[in-house]
Amino acid sequence: MKVAVMGCGTVGSGAVEILESKGELLSARCGEPVELKYILDIRDLSSRPYGKKVVKDIDLILEDPEVGVVVETMGGIEPAFTFCMKCLNAGKSVVTSNKEMVAVKADDLFEAARANNVSFAFEAAVCGGIPVIRTMFTDLGANRLTGFDGIMNGTTNFILTKMIKEKMSFDSALKLAQELGYAEKDPTADVEGLDACRKTAILASIVLGTHVRPEEIPTEGISRITLEDASYASDAGAEIKLICKAEKLPDGKVYAAVSPAFVSRNTMIANVSGVNNAVALRGDSVGEVFLYGPGAGKEATASAVISDVLECIRLKKNQEHYYFAPHRDGLLCGKGENITSLYVRGYAKHMETAAREIRETFESVRFLSRDNSPANELAFITGKGREKDLYEAVAGIRDFASASVIRVL
Amino acid sequence: MKVAVMGCGTVGSGAVEILESKGELLSARCGEPVELKYILDIRDLSSRPYGKKVVKDIDLILEDPEVGVVVETMGGIEPAFTFCMKCLNAGKSVVTSNKEMVAVKADDLFEAARANNVSFAFEAAVCGGIPVIRTMFTDLGANRLTGFDGIMNGTTNFILTKMIKEKMSFDSALKLAQELGYAEKDPTADVEGLDACRKTAILASIVLGTHVRPEEIPTEGISRITLEDASYASDAGAEIKLICKAEKLPDGKVYAAVSPAFVSRNTMIANVSGVNNAVALRGDSVGEVFLYGPGAGKEATASAVISDVLECIRLKKNQEHYYFAPHRDGLLCGKGENITSLYVRGYAKHMETAAREIRETFESVRFLSRDNSPANELAFITGKGREKDLYEAVAGIRDFASASVIRVL
Repeated sequence: MKVAVMGCGTVGSGAVEILESKGELLSARCGEPVELKYILDIRDLSSRPYGKKVVKDIDLILEDPEVGVVVETMGGIEPAFTFCMKCLNAGKSVVTSNKEMVAVKADDLFEAARANNVSFAFEAAVCGGIPVIRTMFTDLGANRLTGFDGIMNGTTNFILTKMIKEKMSFDSALKLAQELGYAEKDPTADVEGLDACRKTAILASIVLGTHVRPEEIPTEGISRITLEDASYASDAGAEIKLICKAEKLPDGKVYAAVSPAFVSRNTMIANVSGVNNAVALRGDSVGEVFLYGPGAGKEATASAVISDVLECIRLKKNQEHYYFAPHRDGLLCGKGENITSLYVRGYAKHMETAAREIRETFESVRFLSRDNSPANELAFITGKGREKDLYEAVAGIRDFASASVIRVL
Repeated sequence: MKVAVMGCGTVGSGAVEILESKGELLSARCGEPVELKYILDIRDLSSRPYGKKVVKDIDLILEDPEVGVVVETMGGIEPAFTFCMKCLNAGKSVVTSNKEMVAVKADDLFEAARANNVSFAFEAAVCGGIPVIRTMFTDLGANRLTGFDGIMNGTTNFILTKMIKEKMSFDSALKLAQELGYAEKDPTADVEGLDACRKTAILASIVLGTHVRPEEIPTEGISRITLEDASYASDAGAEIKLICKAEKLPDGKVYAAVSPAFVSRNTMIANVSGVNNAVALRGDSVGEVFLYGPGAGKEATASAVISDVLECIRLKKNQEHYYFAPHRDGLLCGKGENITSLYVRGYAKHMETAAREIRETFESVRFLSRDNSPANELAFITGKGREKDLYEAVAGIRDFASASVIRVL
């Protein structure tokens, strides 16, 4: 079967290189020849080794009956979405690494794939080389999925790792991440959690079985985290991580959120450092399965893209179980309705009064300490409760002004 | 499609319970009704809720054209192997959790599955609920697999965790494991690494693409590990783990082994504690992917069994890429040809002379210490070298008698 790649950037060129260099291996694994035929890109790539395959007109791909699978690695919603729809409607399976498009447009793409009895697959859209999507759809197929906790943005995890392990400030850590190529010049999408939010929306959709949109997921980035918070986390035996979370609640609704969280050092997920990603998936039969590895990078992400290509070639039909239903409103739990503990840092007018008041307010409370804290600083972790109630209780402490509130996983 | 389960022990009854309780969910996930029709067991199970489905004659299953998938959860090689071959030759896909049978008889089973264009699948045979087999065959399909390190026996990991974290002796930890039901009355298969060896043989076969038999894999258990070694491991910043390993060498041969090893606490695999399992899989494109979770247990293992059943029903044909070639001799590297470091503990006639000799013998060496060690005890970690050469070098230290030698991962 012939393959086309749309968008020859980082991930696309990685996919091209695997297709070009491992033809024999890939062919053996699908029981038929696998060959890259076209690369669609508007740039001049004629000097590249595969330059002769570059085309600028998508119709060449759409009209070529030899092409059975099209890889979309352009990124962004348009024109990627229009191109993918055209490919599906031309009877070609589509494999994408484009989380933004999947998070926003999955419904239309699934429908077109079904209608044309071809596949639409997106393993590479979440956590790069880690096989999280197919694990949820296939390997945990005997389970009712109940939720996940993930670290799905390498840039923010790198910054938080530097802040906690090396006491680097947020600004210095961000600058270093930019120097190393881990963060973009405009780091907003990573730092404010938007990238993590899209991935959370995709995985939450699989848990729920129904499309969850990014704008439905309360999202908070890491730019407010201070070195003071990092010190208190250490005292609590915890790391601070940007956690992507979804959880099925007893009433069937799903709680989904992206936010910084204190994570106990005894857990696997706390040990995820640097630019790696990880997801702890939960199912009613299996319990918890934890997947960890490279969440980005040219070759690792291309590995996921090409594994999807191979499945599409092997199956030659719609993968009916690789699917979630179209979006409906009202399936997520309301903001603040989740049960959690909170870490709170703030300043007291009178330390003893405030501490007594805090102890009286929460059923259980653990005070934290750090070196060289100002005389009027107080930090503590509350017992579990409805998040909304905990926030109200914190605001109600008369003698105390909170400066930082972070969830505890 | 109708399903039969052969062997209603721990895992088998788990599979039965999922089939009985989640019929609607499973049917939705394969696009057709999925129903348990027969349970083959020689015991009297008539009082169980599914008692009416129990049969004692395999021919009922073989001759029923409605049965498309048979689950084998009997364990042991015979009669399981004969039964599985009969099922495959009757045109039924077979799903098994039986690592012993797969490790020894995979060649015949794959051949029969191919000849009859049905599936033979064994996700549950290695690491229980962790989806390691399908990840290697499918999700890492774009990769040349280069090796793995795994903790694939929960019993020994529980014992080692107790020895290191709680300074419990091997005998006490084994006794506790038996009391908790983690270890058999006769713990040999776990403690001496035989169970881990079978699983290593299966995964090494997938890495190599050719069947590796258990008897080809040098295997060492944990019964020689002492509390002294555990103390020195702590000083080295390491845990001691029973490591299942395979690695493709530059000459194309594979090094495979099961043995205790020092594992740096900075690695994910060192953090695997208690009865959990984990595998770090390596591929040439993805780098390393680490999978962690329940390696045994009724429901987790049944989750893997049923995910295989669903794939068989969805595909209705042989899964050609889910395969390794028949056994050939001479594909593994010779014993001791691998490159490693060694931890060595022993007794010196004259401490200073021995220490000097050790320093002169190895290019780099790190001496370890522990509290309350006898005056003539010495422990150290060598630099890297060919294992065979390192062992010879240790034996050649005149002033020193080694009491314990453990690989360093």
